Amino acid sequence: MSIAYRPSHPDATYDMKYGIRSVQKQLEEWPLELLLRKFSSSSQGTEVIAYVSQVHQVVLPDGLVDHDTVSLDQIESNIVMCPDPEYAEKMIAAIDVVRTRGDPIGGGVTCIVRNAPRGLRSPVFDKLEADLGKAVMSLPAIKGFEFGSGFAGTFLTGREHNDEFYTDEHGRIRTRTNRSGGIQGGISNGEIMNMRVAFKPTATISKKQLIVTREKKEMELLASGRHDPCVDPRELPMVEAIVALVLVDQLMAQHGQCNLFPINPDLQEPLGSNFPKFEPANIHRK
Amino acid sequence: MSIAYRPSHPDATYDMKYGIRSVQKQLEEWPLELLLRKFSSSSQGTEVIAYVSQVHQVVLPDGLVDHDTVSLDQIESNIVMCPDPEYAEKMIAAIDVVRTRGDPIGGGVTCIVRNAPRGLRSPVFDKLEADLGKAVMSLPAIKGFEFGSGFAGTFLTGREHNDEFYTDEHGRIRTRTNRSGGIQGGISNGEIMNMRVAFKPTATISKKQLIVTREKKEMELLASGRHDPCVDPRELPMVEAIVALVLVDQLMAQHGQCNLFPINPDLQEPLGSNFPKFEPANIHRK
Amino acid sequence: MSIAYRPSHPDATYDMKYGIRSVQKQLEEWPLELLLRKFSSSSQGTEVIAYVSQVHQVVLPDGLVDHDTVSLDQIESNIVMCPDPEYAEKMIAAIDVVRTRGDPIGGGVTCIVRNAPRGLRSPVFDKLEADLGKAVMSLPAIKGFEFGSGFAGTFLTGREHNDEFYTDEHGRIRTRTNRSGGIQGGISNGEIMNMRVAFKPTATISKKQLIVTREKKEMELLASGRHDPCVDPRELPMVEAIVALVLVDQLMAQHGQCNLFPINPDLQEPLGSNFPKFEPANIHRK
Amino acid sequence: MSIAYRPSHPDATYDMKYGIRSVQKQLEEWPLELLLRKFSSSSQGTEVIAYVSQVHQVVLPDGLVDHDTVSLDQIESNIVMCPDPEYAEKMIAAIDVVRTRGDPIGGGVTCIVRNAPRGLRSPVFDKLEADLGKAVMSLPAIKGFEFGSGFAGTFLTGREHNDEFYTDEHGRIRTRTNRSGGIQGGISNGEIMNMRVAFKPTATISKKQLIVTREKKEMELLASGRHDPCVDPRELPMVEAIVALVLVDQLMAQHGQCNLFPINPDLQEPLGSNFPKFEPANIHRK
Repeated sequence: MSIAYRPSHPDATYDMKYGIRSVQKQLEEWPLELLLRKFSSSSQGTEVIAYVSQVHQVVLPDGLVDHDTVSLDQIESNIVMCPDPEYAEKMIAAIDVVRTRGDPIGGGVTCIVRNAPRGLRSPVFDKLEADLGKAVMSLPAIKGFEFGSGFAGTFLTGREHNDEFYTDEHGRIRTRTNRSGGIQGGISNGEIMNMRVAFKPTATISKKQLIVTREKKEMELLASGRHDPCVDPRELPMVEAIVALVLVDQLMAQHGQCNLFPINPDLQEPLGSNFPKFEPANIHRK
Repeated sequence: MSIAYRPSHPDATYDMKYGIRSVQKQLEEWPLELLLRKFSSSSQGTEVIAYVSQVHQVVLPDGLVDHDTVSLDQIESNIVMCPDPEYAEKMIAAIDVVRTRGDPIGGGVTCIVRNAPRGLRSPVFDKLEADLGKAVMSLPAIKGFEFGSGFAGTFLTGREHNDEFYTDEHGRIRTRTNRSGGIQGGISNGEIMNMRVAFKPTATISKKQLIVTREKKEMELLASGRHDPCVDPRELPMVEAIVALVLVDQLMAQHGQCNLFPINPDLQEPLGSNFPKFEPANIHRK
Repeated sequence: MSIAYRPSHPDATYDMKYGIRSVQKQLEEWPLELLLRKFSSSSQGTEVIAYVSQVHQVVLPDGLVDHDTVSLDQIESNIVMCPDPEYAEKMIAAIDVVRTRGDPIGGGVTCIVRNAPRGLRSPVFDKLEADLGKAVMSLPAIKGFEFGSGFAGTFLTGREHNDEFYTDEHGRIRTRTNRSGGIQGGISNGEIMNMRVAFKPTATISKKQLIVTREKKEMELLASGRHDPCVDPRELPMVEAIVALVLVDQLMAQHGQCNLFPINPDLQEPLGSNFPKFEPANIHRK
Repeated sequence: MSIAYRPSHPDATYDMKYGIRSVQKQLEEWPLELLLRKFSSSSQGTEVIAYVSQVHQVVLPDGLVDHDTVSLDQIESNIVMCPDPEYAEKMIAAIDVVRTRGDPIGGGVTCIVRNAPRGLRSPVFDKLEADLGKAVMSLPAIKGFEFGSGFAGTFLTGREHNDEFYTDEHGRIRTRTNRSGGIQGGISNGEIMNMRVAFKPTATISKKQLIVTREKKEMELLASGRHDPCVDPRELPMVEAIVALVLVDQLMAQHGQCNLFPINPDLQEPLGSNFPKFEPANIHRK
């Protein structure tokens, strides 16, 4: 397409819409991960951070990782992407055990969202937890999804589970505990969102198995090709990315709603209007 | 729902989302028409204005109404909502002829959009003209939709039809003519959008007609009840409202895209960030 | 993907879903046009047929083409795809006039649907005419859409416009006239659907034009490359295809609704259950 | 609306579409539960059955309920809707403990789908497990969702987790185990679907709690009104209904696809064409 604006061709309107012509170039300069980082470095400072919290029998205990402070550096300090060094070693050992056996193991990934705006999504038809659940359940090998207190929350009573409100030193309404996982009634409340995902072991194993063909003949199969001993660390950026995609959509919707048609800004807390320009940059995960 | 924020109830998040609790009250204070007017009075100043351009055989000639200046006052100065006083009288006379006969007549409504942002909608799957077409074709009694040069444009050649670009005194890229109707390649270009809609005469007539029942029996029917001699003036706010609904959605999407993730603001012209608060007010169509 | 069904891989479920693995092969064997023809040759016998009804000033008069009998053979008997031989010659002559000038002309395409099932689509939010309108308005170069009596219907009175019902010799409820264009209240009534589409002349012309660049510099452009003197005959299969896509979706929805959950088959007329297998075949437009 | 078909009114097309006029009457005669039962009694015989599998600390062990044979009668034989009489008593006792305390407890519901057709939903964008996850996560008080081997499956290795295929005595391809939960690669494989849902305890408790008002004042609240000691049995029909809604949509889509446009019926197993008429009946849950 020409950088000339030819009469009655859409050269001009494409520029007005996208500010760029070459989709190819755009994708090269703006990988999804960059979107994620830019998202994080916006004035809102929303961060989407995932880490490996389980490899087979090695389960990171609840509370060992501080969600207020856990950083990308801590997570990326080891090959299994677990922010706790001691448990990271145990996980690496667990993978080593099965590495040569061709018998893969599964595990779990925890994903948190810090500094998300309040008011994202809606109370009945498209709850934020339902959208996040669908997004995450769309990744391969997932068998379960929980957020906030999750399955463990079923062992609490109402008194133990309720998150009491208070007004913090900045005059913002907060909850003292966060069993709601940052979402109440389908809408974000500004607390840290946390969710946990179960990955089954992958299906390609190094062992003869009985299979059936399309023609219903039974035969034996010994799979060749790559075997992943544990996909957890590789699933992690997928979880981060799909959670960020859900949130970016809602961030844009929220910005449109609250900045163009605000009703009660004292309650709604519109996003800061000083979001930085989304510039291509050399930010890549190590 | 309480104005107290009960623990682990969504009282707080509803406020964070909507800034208001009583949906009923909200609807009373914010009629769709008010949305339309507020939309117009935003700093962007987008205006959606419709007028009756045809009643049966009385057709307002193209160009008689100046789309740069036509105002709500002109349109509302007579009962048929036609901004040209001479044609308004002819239209009223045409309706008078059929008023007592119980033989309704149809006509046409023209709708324009002034000061819409550039860059609304997309080039392939959900073109702005396609969305507007679907929206307008969803109103009752519509048999046709055209925008820009419309059906009449088929009688022009390419040389006659092309809209040449120029740079205006404010440094903005404009077109000298506007046969594109403010939309090129599915995306708004900032020129005035104009579209025209055909209304059939309504089906309820004061005359015996042969009908069939559900049981396939033929019988005669003489309809009773209200007869509209001409629905054009009453269709007009429906056309305005549905066009505004399409545009408000796109305005919010554009605001989210260009203000949160701008790529090239020189080309994209992000909306002004000083949109006024959307306050309930006593603005009603006379 | 293997024709073996490997344990816990989705080989088997893909076959259960699609009955085929190679998407590439599928697309080669099943061009959209074939879908269209298969659609026509089903036991329902729904046919989607488009023809050129206008080239610039040459306008096929209403009623000259008999929609009950017009055939693909008649349409394909000449290069402009107009079923009336006399008007086809006039259209070819009109194109010849501009062919060497590099000044393209537009026109109109009429599309009819014969033997569509009754009951397609819904009365309020996704009317059949609204869906067809959006689909057709998504094609390039379209400036207008009308169906049934269309813009011309605005010159009729209610008495002239109404379609009276009767019961035909097969006991089916029909209308004597068809100004509704086969759709009433958003839902198909089994009569022939007819719609007409306006194409503007294409924008690429062989003449120097003033243009503006992205940097807002004014300059002259003389376009090189292909010039279409008239795109009408080439738009025709696009109109047919997009109308068929809308209808195939609704045909499947209708089949699911009326055959799985019938309420009153006497009124609803479920589709025949003896639809033929959708086999790849060598049917191609000449 | 008249049972007469008035000219150019949509009386006739509404009947052709719906076979019924009175939406009110329709809803009365066809409660959602009836849809569910009719769904079950179709020739396909798809059954959606949910039961309470956890009340607070009382957790029904995996495998205690036989999903091949568990029946509605077994589930409805006690007030907590648990098909195992011994565990039902324990659950009732657990609820009795908290009934008068005003300190509610949560738990879990298991839902299975028997005899669903093969081939429902799609491999990438709208996987069946993702749709079911979103649907179920839209119910109130849900904190987690798992299907097939679920979170427990993360403790297995690939060899332990894989479901081997075989051809059964009817020549149908089956899996010997069902850790996939009836869904592989986003598509149903005809085995029993099973999913489990975590319900948090409800938030209304009989105890003074610190709350915050909209004006950010801290105060004490003692909730009055109804207190549910345990919502599990009442959530159960909601889980059944929303799972059935997802499946009915896909059943209709599958019927449209495979019966109208079959590609390879040997692999796809089109639904039987002899689905019974969906008649209102007096089937109600006891």
